[in-house]
Amino acid sequence: MKYDFTTIPPRRHTDSVKWNIKDNELPMWIADMDFKIAPEIIQAMQDKLQLGAFGYEEPQDDYFNAVAGWYEQEHNFKPKDDWMIFSTGVVPAISSIVRRVSHLGDNVLVQEPVYNIFYNSIENNGRHVLSSDLVFDGEAYSVDWQDLEEKLADPLTALMIFCNPHNPIGKVWTKAEIERIASLCKKYHVVLLSDEIHGDLVRFGDSYIPAFAIDTNLLSNVISLVSPSKTFNVAALHAATVIIPNDNLRSIVNRGLNSEELAEPNLLAIPASIAAYTKGHNWLKELKQVLNNNFDYATNFIKEYLPEVKVVAGRATYLMWLDISEVSDNSAGLSQFIREDTGLVVSAGSVYRGNGNDFLRINLACPKPMVEDAMARLSKAIHDFQNMAK
Amino acid sequence: MKYDFTTIPPRRHTDSVKWNIKDNELPMWIADMDFKIAPEIIQAMQDKLQLGAFGYEEPQDDYFNAVAGWYEQEHNFKPKDDWMIFSTGVVPAISSIVRRVSHLGDNVLVQEPVYNIFYNSIENNGRHVLSSDLVFDGEAYSVDWQDLEEKLADPLTALMIFCNPHNPIGKVWTKAEIERIASLCKKYHVVLLSDEIHGDLVRFGDSYIPAFAIDTNLLSNVISLVSPSKTFNVAALHAATVIIPNDNLRSIVNRGLNSEELAEPNLLAIPASIAAYTKGHNWLKELKQVLNNNFDYATNFIKEYLPEVKVVAGRATYLMWLDISEVSDNSAGLSQFIREDTGLVVSAGSVYRGNGNDFLRINLACPKPMVEDAMARLSKAIHDFQNMAK
Ligand SMILES: Cc1ncc(COP(=O)(O)O)c(C=O)c1O
Ligand SMILES: Cc1ncc(COP(=O)(O)O)c(C=O)c1O
Repeated sequence: MKYDFTTIPPRRHTDSVKWNIKDNELPMWIADMDFKIAPEIIQAMQDKLQLGAFGYEEPQDDYFNAVAGWYEQEHNFKPKDDWMIFSTGVVPAISSIVRRVSHLGDNVLVQEPVYNIFYNSIENNGRHVLSSDLVFDGEAYSVDWQDLEEKLADPLTALMIFCNPHNPIGKVWTKAEIERIASLCKKYHVVLLSDEIHGDLVRFGDSYIPAFAIDTNLLSNVISLVSPSKTFNVAALHAATVIIPNDNLRSIVNRGLNSEELAEPNLLAIPASIAAYTKGHNWLKELKQVLNNNFDYATNFIKEYLPEVKVVAGRATYLMWLDISEVSDNSAGLSQFIREDTGLVVSAGSVYRGNGNDFLRINLACPKPMVEDAMARLSKAIHDFQNMAK
Repeated sequence: MKYDFTTIPPRRHTDSVKWNIKDNELPMWIADMDFKIAPEIIQAMQDKLQLGAFGYEEPQDDYFNAVAGWYEQEHNFKPKDDWMIFSTGVVPAISSIVRRVSHLGDNVLVQEPVYNIFYNSIENNGRHVLSSDLVFDGEAYSVDWQDLEEKLADPLTALMIFCNPHNPIGKVWTKAEIERIASLCKKYHVVLLSDEIHGDLVRFGDSYIPAFAIDTNLLSNVISLVSPSKTFNVAALHAATVIIPNDNLRSIVNRGLNSEELAEPNLLAIPASIAAYTKGHNWLKELKQVLNNNFDYATNFIKEYLPEVKVVAGRATYLMWLDISEVSDNSAGLSQFIREDTGLVVSAGSVYRGNGNDFLRINLACPKPMVEDAMARLSKAIHDFQNMAK
């Protein structure tokens, strides 16, 4: 390894949300990583600080070229220059797009269980969540195509938020699946918003497919959201890119982002993103090895010591989705118990809705000893829980 | 001088909006400064970069204590701990507040001529600008109290955006004036939003009066917006504080900022703001001397070489407001001419509306030689303009 994936940056008693916990607690919940970011990104930030004056900024071509180059190199498809808009984050862009492409009282379709903040973006803006739940067969999830089509055909459905790859289940969608979804959306005049924040984090096998890389005939109502934030552990960089092939749709979204003040970069956003997208390839390669190693370790540990818990095997994200239906019928209660019993903080699957109540989500983006500590705590807690229930 | 107010940070051909100009041009328009920021702030930023992991953050007490301490020390009044909310900027907060405390089609009252972006925040959100124009007597501006009262009494007026101190005229409002405005707002159930971004930049004489520092009986509908961005030349830091004494109003605004994703700090916002507010006092003192020096120089220069132009003397901001009514009846045309003739870029007063068409605004926050260059160009351009008109 060229890079440091063993030091845990000391974030206890800082402004970190993840580490805003008791001293004996171990945070494996919110999706940021306990790895030091790539030194190339730090260097670019330090270089920017040398400038010394930090007035108003706007992204230039070098930014958009870096984004496009990254997608060409990592994901085999280069978005066109004029498809891209800078935004301060993926969730800010989602919220703004909800407001621009749907109206009060409309439905926004999601596939539960899914990233919980989608619900905030929909409901806080007075729209309704309509779910075409993913179907779980005990091993993996799939789409109920008939249900999806019926719900997209509902005249009140204006927007679909698609999680590509899918958090929390780790699923990487195939090109065929994405095109089938896109063509249904097109047929029923539904805008397809593809959140691709986890796109770089396909740990092994083929790349994910950006929604802007599908059949051009299906691109008229497609929006992709990408960001270095998950990939490079820079959520607080506040940088994302909105990619919209269609001119008209792009104008609509652009007006929203601008008038809601979500389109101006802070002083680090541009140089750090450029560094990530031009110099981050090798760091990401090593990161994936470390994550795969952690996933293997946790999978084997659970198989051996917690056979009543089942790992849902996904190729993407650093978040592991654990079926705990044989342990408890209340994921919120169980996660609370685990926390009180051992200090291990994981996410209750119930927040993702759908069948999430049967699951826990655990963040494995941290040095191996932290994963080992987490597994030991998880095993103790689940056994204590089972003994208590006897 | 302990600090460096002579080096112009080299921002040509960077992402800077101010310096996105032709090579022969001199930018004295948009409100950021051509001074290096305080080394204490750079240091705090550098220290933060050492941490190495940049996940989700939320401000803690040290941030709010720093803000409160600054207002106590610099402006003689300490806001209470629970009055404050972090926001990503003053304009983002204004736009969000427009959406939360007024409804579509309502009036938002302003005092023209005033900071032009207020109009965007109002009009882009489907509200109407209603101005109680400031009255200019050839020397200074004052409020037409009867007109103001009539317009606040209009049942469609829901919000007043007050610029305290006032950009572009540089006026520092007295406590009596602010209380009179606040009591009219209270009487007519209008929320008073006081934009205090220039509050620290009262170049000489007594401090400005924060709206949260007036008679407590008048505070039920008052919002103040403060930020280190103008004071310390960190517009791209994306940090501001919303100060609202009233619990109910604060909850309403807080919901808006959160659901519109305008309440989360980027990785530098908190440490740099704390450094500015705890270690920036002396830098600001020196900055004011430099600015006063520039204002004196420009005032004398204009008196001597451009007697047909009149400086409107204000105590606040680094922006000089120049009455050019004897030169032209079209400030946009004149500023365009100046730019083409000499490369000097100033703001046309017309964008501020009201009687702004008779004015130019020129930014004097830069090292003295740049002011001298600007004055030489201004004088050449105005004389060329007059010769051309003959
Ligand atoms: C699917 C998904 N979208 C968006 C985000 C957050 O995006 P941002 O931090 O850019 O707002 C996350 C974070 O976990 C996520 O999982
Ligand atoms: C009165 C006033 N308010 C707000 C701003 C900008 O605030 P921010 O950069 O925090 O959005 C300016 C910038 O010139 C200003 O003059």
